[in-house]
Amino acid sequence: MKILFIQTGGTIDKDYPKTKGGWAFEFGEPATERILSKLDPSFEYEIHTASQKDSLEITEADRQSLADLINKEVADAYVVTHGTDTMMDTAAFLSSRVDRKVVILTGAMRPERFSNSDAPINLGVAIGAANLLDPGIYIAMHGILKSASEIQRNADNGKFY
Amino acid sequence: MKILFIQTGGTIDKDYPKTKGGWAFEFGEPATERILSKLDPSFEYEIHTASQKDSLEITEADRQSLADLINKEVADAYVVTHGTDTMMDTAAFLSSRVDRKVVILTGAMRPERFSNSDAPINLGVAIGAANLLDPGIYIAMHGILKSASEIQRNADNGKFY
Amino acid sequence: MKILFIQTGGTIDKDYPKTKGGWAFEFGEPATERILSKLDPSFEYEIHTASQKDSLEITEADRQSLADLINKEVADAYVVTHGTDTMMDTAAFLSSRVDRKVVILTGAMRPERFSNSDAPINLGVAIGAANLLDPGIYIAMHGILKSASEIQRNADNGKFY
Amino acid sequence: MKILFIQTGGTIDKDYPKTKGGWAFEFGEPATERILSKLDPSFEYEIHTASQKDSLEITEADRQSLADLINKEVADAYVVTHGTDTMMDTAAFLSSRVDRKVVILTGAMRPERFSNSDAPINLGVAIGAANLLDPGIYIAMHGILKSASEIQRNADNGKFY
Repeated sequence: MKILFIQTGGTIDKDYPKTKGGWAFEFGEPATERILSKLDPSFEYEIHTASQKDSLEITEADRQSLADLINKEVADAYVVTHGTDTMMDTAAFLSSRVDRKVVILTGAMRPERFSNSDAPINLGVAIGAANLLDPGIYIAMHGILKSASEIQRNADNGKFY
Repeated sequence: MKILFIQTGGTIDKDYPKTKGGWAFEFGEPATERILSKLDPSFEYEIHTASQKDSLEITEADRQSLADLINKEVADAYVVTHGTDTMMDTAAFLSSRVDRKVVILTGAMRPERFSNSDAPINLGVAIGAANLLDPGIYIAMHGILKSASEIQRNADNGKFY
Repeated sequence: MKILFIQTGGTIDKDYPKTKGGWAFEFGEPATERILSKLDPSFEYEIHTASQKDSLEITEADRQSLADLINKEVADAYVVTHGTDTMMDTAAFLSSRVDRKVVILTGAMRPERFSNSDAPINLGVAIGAANLLDPGIYIAMHGILKSASEIQRNADNGKFY
Repeated sequence: MKILFIQTGGTIDKDYPKTKGGWAFEFGEPATERILSKLDPSFEYEIHTASQKDSLEITEADRQSLADLINKEVADAYVVTHGTDTMMDTAAFLSSRVDRKVVILTGAMRPERFSNSDAPINLGVAIGAANLLDPGIYIAMHGILKSASEIQRNADNGKFY
C-alpha cells in the first residue's frame, strides 16, 4: 500500500515560529511528517505540499490544483490534511473532479504542535480507512469516517458527525 | 456507532507512578481515556478493563475471559489494546472463540505517556477501521490493518506488516 | 517558602479553544497550573490572575494593578508570567512601584500548550531564582536571570541576554 | 556564563527504545539535549556523559570519576542529572571532593520522554540557580534548591524538601 499525503494548511499545521516584530501563528512543515516519524509505518508514503493556507482562504483554483495533483499522482490512497472550516466544500469539489481514487480529508481542531492535539488520532483514522476503502471522497474527523455526501457538521460546537 | 474499548495491559498503558522503595513501570488508567479526551469523538463508547498485564503474562484464561466479554457485550466494534509480544496469539485465540463481531487489536511500541508514542495514531487506525470493517478479528499496528490470519511480524525490528 | 504566581497573559498562556464561527488563539487557565501539577512542588504557592492579555495590550493601569497586587499580598517571591514584547517595560515600571519584594517576570516564546514549548523550563528558572534572590525586579528568559536594569533583548531574534 | 551539563543516568534519561526480544527501559541520549533545544539558551554550554546508570548502580568509582570531571573542566556551573535514589549520596560525596565549584544535582520523578515529566522544570530550577549561586554542592528537586547538607527527602512519597 502506498499513501500520498497532501498538505493544504489548516489548523493541523499551525505553528508558532519566531517572526521579527511579533510572534504569530504560521504554517510550517507538514505535521504529517512528525506524526509518521512516531508511527514508523509499514506502508509506503510520500508527502506533498499543495498549499499552506487557512481553509477560509482556499480558492477554487487551489481546489482545482489539488484535484489535478490527485489525478496525476499514482497511489493507493490520498490523505489530504485541510482546515475544518471549508473541508466539506473541498470534499464536494473533489467529488466532481476526481475519479476512481480513494481520497480522505482530515485535519485537526487543535494544531499538531499542541500537546492536547487531536491530529495524530485523526490522521490515524484516515490511515485506517485508507487500508479498507473503495474509491470515493471521504472525511475523517472526530473518529467518524463518512463519504463527502454523508458527513455533516454541528455549527454550534464544530463537531463532524 | 458504538465502540467498546477493552484494556488488557501492554506497553501502551505502561506508566511510571511513584511506588515506595523504588520507581518502576506499572499499569495505570487505560491510555484510551486520555486519547479519546483529545479526540472528543462523535461515536458512542465505553472503556472496560479486562486485565493490566505485560502481554507475555497473558494466560489462556485471560484470553477466554476476553472472548467472553466480547461475546457478552453489545457494540458495533471492539477495540482491544494489548501488548505487542503476544498480540498475534490473542488474535488467533479470539478468531476461534468470537463469532460475528468486529474485533481490532492494537497497542503501541512506546507507552502513551511518552511524548513520542505511536499510541494515539494506532488507536486512530483501529477507530478508522471500526467504521468500515465486516465481522472478523484484525490487528492494527504500524499503520497497517490486516486480519488475524494475514498479519505478520518482523522478528528483527518488531514491525507488523 | 511561599511563591505567588501571577498571570497577566502573553504567549505562555495562549490556547486554541473552540469558538463559534472560527478557531482562534485565546487566553485560558494559567499555564502555571499545568506546569506545577507536573512538578508537585515542595514549596507553598498560590496562583492569581491579574489580566489575560497580549503584552502589547497591557496598559499603565494594568501595571499599576499588578504593582498593587504584589505590594498587598504576602509571599517570599512573586513570579509574574507575561508576554515578551513588553516584559521589560513592565519590569521597569515595577522597579519604581514595588519595594523590598522578590519579583521575577518570565514567559515563553511558544505557548505552554505546544509540545516544544519553553514555558516549563522558563518557569523552572524563575522558581530556582526565587529560592535565592534578594529583593528586586528580575527577568528570567532563555536560561538567563538578570535584574530589570541589566537585562537586554536582541531585536532581531527576540532573545533576552 | 558557561554551564557544563553532566549525564549520569537516572529516571530523567530513561527511554523505551526497541530491543530485540523484548522492549525495556534503557538509557539514551541525555534528556538535557532535548530540553535545551526547546529553551534555546542565551548561555554557553556543553553536555558530557559520565555514566548511564540507574542511580542504585552508581559506584564510588563512578562518583570519583564525576568529581574528577568537574575538577578538570572549566565552567561557571556544573549541572549533574542523576537518579533520585542516591542523589543525596552523590551530593555528599562531591562535597568532600570538589572545591570552589558551583555544582547542582537534579533529575526527575518521571522520564523526560513522558509528556507529564517534571524534567524540564527541574532542569530550569537548576539553571536558574546556576545564575546565582556561590560555590558549593546543591540539589534542585520539587522546586526547592538547597545545599547538599540541608536537603532532605520524605521516604514515604519520595519528595525532596
